[in-house]
Amino acid sequence: MDMMLDAVLSAAYGARGPLAASTPWQREGWLRAVADGLEARRGPLVELAMRETHLPQGRLDGELTRTAFQLRLLADRAGRGDYLDARIDYADPSWPMGPRPDIRRMKVPLGVVLVFAASNFPFAFSVAGGDTASAFAAGCPVVVKANPGHLELSRAVAAAVAEALGAAGAPEGMFGMIESDEDGRAAVTDTRVAAVGFTGSTRVGRLLFDLAAGRPVPIPFYGELGSTNPVVVTPAAAAERPAEIAAGFVGSFTLGAGQFCTKPGWLLVPAGSSVPAEAGRLVAEAAGQPMLNARIRTGFGAAVSELAGADGFEVLAGSLPAADGGAGLAAAPVLLSATAATLLADPGLLERECFGPAATVVTYRDIDEAAALVRQVPGQLTASVQAAAGADPDAAALAAALAGHAGRVLWNQWPTGVTVSDAQQHGGPYPATTAAAATSVGTAAIERWLRPVAYQNMPADALPAPLRDDNPWGVPQLVDGQLRSGQ
Amino acid sequence: MDMMLDAVLSAAYGARGPLAASTPWQREGWLRAVADGLEARRGPLVELAMRETHLPQGRLDGELTRTAFQLRLLADRAGRGDYLDARIDYADPSWPMGPRPDIRRMKVPLGVVLVFAASNFPFAFSVAGGDTASAFAAGCPVVVKANPGHLELSRAVAAAVAEALGAAGAPEGMFGMIESDEDGRAAVTDTRVAAVGFTGSTRVGRLLFDLAAGRPVPIPFYGELGSTNPVVVTPAAAAERPAEIAAGFVGSFTLGAGQFCTKPGWLLVPAGSSVPAEAGRLVAEAAGQPMLNARIRTGFGAAVSELAGADGFEVLAGSLPAADGGAGLAAAPVLLSATAATLLADPGLLERECFGPAATVVTYRDIDEAAALVRQVPGQLTASVQAAAGADPDAAALAAALAGHAGRVLWNQWPTGVTVSDAQQHGGPYPATTAAAATSVGTAAIERWLRPVAYQNMPADALPAPLRDDNPWGVPQLVDGQLRSGQ
Repeated sequence: MDMMLDAVLSAAYGARGPLAASTPWQREGWLRAVADGLEARRGPLVELAMRETHLPQGRLDGELTRTAFQLRLLADRAGRGDYLDARIDYADPSWPMGPRPDIRRMKVPLGVVLVFAASNFPFAFSVAGGDTASAFAAGCPVVVKANPGHLELSRAVAAAVAEALGAAGAPEGMFGMIESDEDGRAAVTDTRVAAVGFTGSTRVGRLLFDLAAGRPVPIPFYGELGSTNPVVVTPAAAAERPAEIAAGFVGSFTLGAGQFCTKPGWLLVPAGSSVPAEAGRLVAEAAGQPMLNARIRTGFGAAVSELAGADGFEVLAGSLPAADGGAGLAAAPVLLSATAATLLADPGLLERECFGPAATVVTYRDIDEAAALVRQVPGQLTASVQAAAGADPDAAALAAALAGHAGRVLWNQWPTGVTVSDAQQHGGPYPATTAAAATSVGTAAIERWLRPVAYQNMPADALPAPLRDDNPWGVPQLVDGQLRSGQ
Repeated sequence: MDMMLDAVLSAAYGARGPLAASTPWQREGWLRAVADGLEARRGPLVELAMRETHLPQGRLDGELTRTAFQLRLLADRAGRGDYLDARIDYADPSWPMGPRPDIRRMKVPLGVVLVFAASNFPFAFSVAGGDTASAFAAGCPVVVKANPGHLELSRAVAAAVAEALGAAGAPEGMFGMIESDEDGRAAVTDTRVAAVGFTGSTRVGRLLFDLAAGRPVPIPFYGELGSTNPVVVTPAAAAERPAEIAAGFVGSFTLGAGQFCTKPGWLLVPAGSSVPAEAGRLVAEAAGQPMLNARIRTGFGAAVSELAGADGFEVLAGSLPAADGGAGLAAAPVLLSATAATLLADPGLLERECFGPAATVVTYRDIDEAAALVRQVPGQLTASVQAAAGADPDAAALAAALAGHAGRVLWNQWPTGVTVSDAQQHGGPYPATTAAAATSVGTAAIERWLRPVAYQNMPADALPAPLRDDNPWGVPQLVDGQLRSGQ
């Protein structure tokens, strides 16, 4: 094994105990220190990110704000301790199934979390992003596998994180970073790693998931893989406001050069609607934007050309990107079209993700055909309905059906833009993720890095603080089935 | 595919929608109906169970009581709706990372749950056991793979379940049963199955886990496999009450002919203690009991003989069962001994589970050697400390260390006997289970069969009831980060 990898994993492994023993306020302080550290270096970090990712300053500035906010929101929730899910059942000699012992349960950190950083959010889903923040909040050491697309930035953020943690008195080894793909793969199967967070392609994600599941001791693998985020426009909505829908759609699928996991890749519209023509006009007028890097630009060209070449697909507006990427990193928007009948004949096409500014308008004959296609939708991060403002006979049923296939269902909004809050769900059935019960965004993301332990008949001084009768940390406790707020 | 299997899976698949649309009170009523149905047939069911499992009437009677109680406790929790984890974040234009849309999140049922029944709890971990009850509570149809050890009983319980559900107006197809191992394997990889619950051996559990993880669309596999449930006796406890500890240990590991997943298989005691001799005396006096069936009796003989033959192991009391099972189903208790040094040299031995009335006393030189062995313990359902009643300098640290390896940690109690309550945790790191974050006993078992969905910008009449402002079901809601009880 690589000496550097071994040292990083050993240091993280050694930090498990001190981290698990830390109080909620200590973790809260460490997370806030990291947020402050990133904001203190905002200028140079954003500059580095611009150079490596070609994303515009405004976007990166906003993303750093989001990243710091995310760290602070998770700090707040770590401090509240509700994620501990503390439960106390007192001994009960008259428990109907037979006498009950005193039994108390709380969540404890899993151990070292390995985080594979994404390419497309160099701050929010990278070194100090949501996976790292939620693992710290849970009390887990983190080893980040840096994304090769922004390695200098990753090193700079890692240095900021390490300095902030060190200055705040956090345990040695709580954070580490590795860089090579080889080290990343080796870490997934290393016995010191207890869980993996991943954001990236379906191909790589599945490969690493298989490694994690195939270990002698399998570990949880929280992978966010691919999503094509279908949007269904009802007949009533298409009749009511075609121009607005077309503009919203084009704005969403071209945002950030289409490099979002929630990009709406499929728009289902009734045949005869003016939405496709309106959208096509906007696409034809839209300028190209630079993509993240040459590998992604090449991958986009290959994916969209392959989809456009499938039977029944046509280029409706824009033009296919040059296959050889000879035009540099820029990619202009392109809109394809197909019929619902084509997709019903080969629903696997709906899984085809073109990571970049491309989408397909799908025309359906009637609402039954649209509903039939919805039943074939593979697992998604998001699925959306565009409904009429007034009475819409179809929208509610479509939304309910889409909820069976997605982690987030939107109504008259567009899926790009993922807020960080308690109610956010960024996840979904496979292949959107490898663990549909989990979210990688929002405060519930903490839950991924914990497991419950029950303590039976323990004397007070041997119990962890959250399970004691005097509740010294003031955490919420479910006591004999009744929730007490703790504060 | 087997026609019968296909029909059962199709029926269950068809019940998903109606079940997901059911109210908490409907599910509560269906669970209570099943509990009532089982109790109404108590006499004939217990009689059938006695004939097939050779367990005594008192034990089976108590197990049926436990099973009905478990159904009713989960009915109560289904009715409360707290497992929905409903969250409402109102739109907030001043959300620090940028304007927040209205977003609301709740848990929805996963779909068809496949349950592999255990051999050793013919009621509580079988056809109408905890997996089935918790899946129903979550709103999932269930297909049980019957355990071949009590097939007649399984059919009788299945008939009772089906009749109770039918009379209570539950959706058609909500419950089904299959019988052959071949059908069980086929069902794990069937696209209509969304999740698996399993209680059984490490060998079979790992095989099925690998099938579930290797599917084109992997599904969660909640398997309870093997556990050897170590108990550490501190020097102070061994000095204080050796006879009591010996009696408790022998009572626990011989209970039910040692056929419990929480049987204490290893007792660590300080060298020179009288505990081993006391335990040996009790074992020598103990009578044999019939085991569940010939396959289990043969497996026990092979496992304990193999362990006794390992270097450094000796038979301390009792005698090894005849290898050929020629003596019928009876198995007499047997106690082995080894030193901590032997196990430290080959910690893999600690994973050896002898399913039956056998255990090993392990002598340690000093508390540091005991602590070193604790660090090598594989994942466990339970781990226990026997501490002195007065001051005990070692017990708390041992308990804390054991919590790193087990789902439940006990203090001066014995691990057999698993109460059903909110704070119970019946799970643990691999190989105790394939999903350490889950429990198969207690009300938190419901969480295994759910996934979250967020609804963004939905009009009130398209929102599921638990997420509406008027909260028609009266469920707890986390509203803008503050918990409201709902009632």
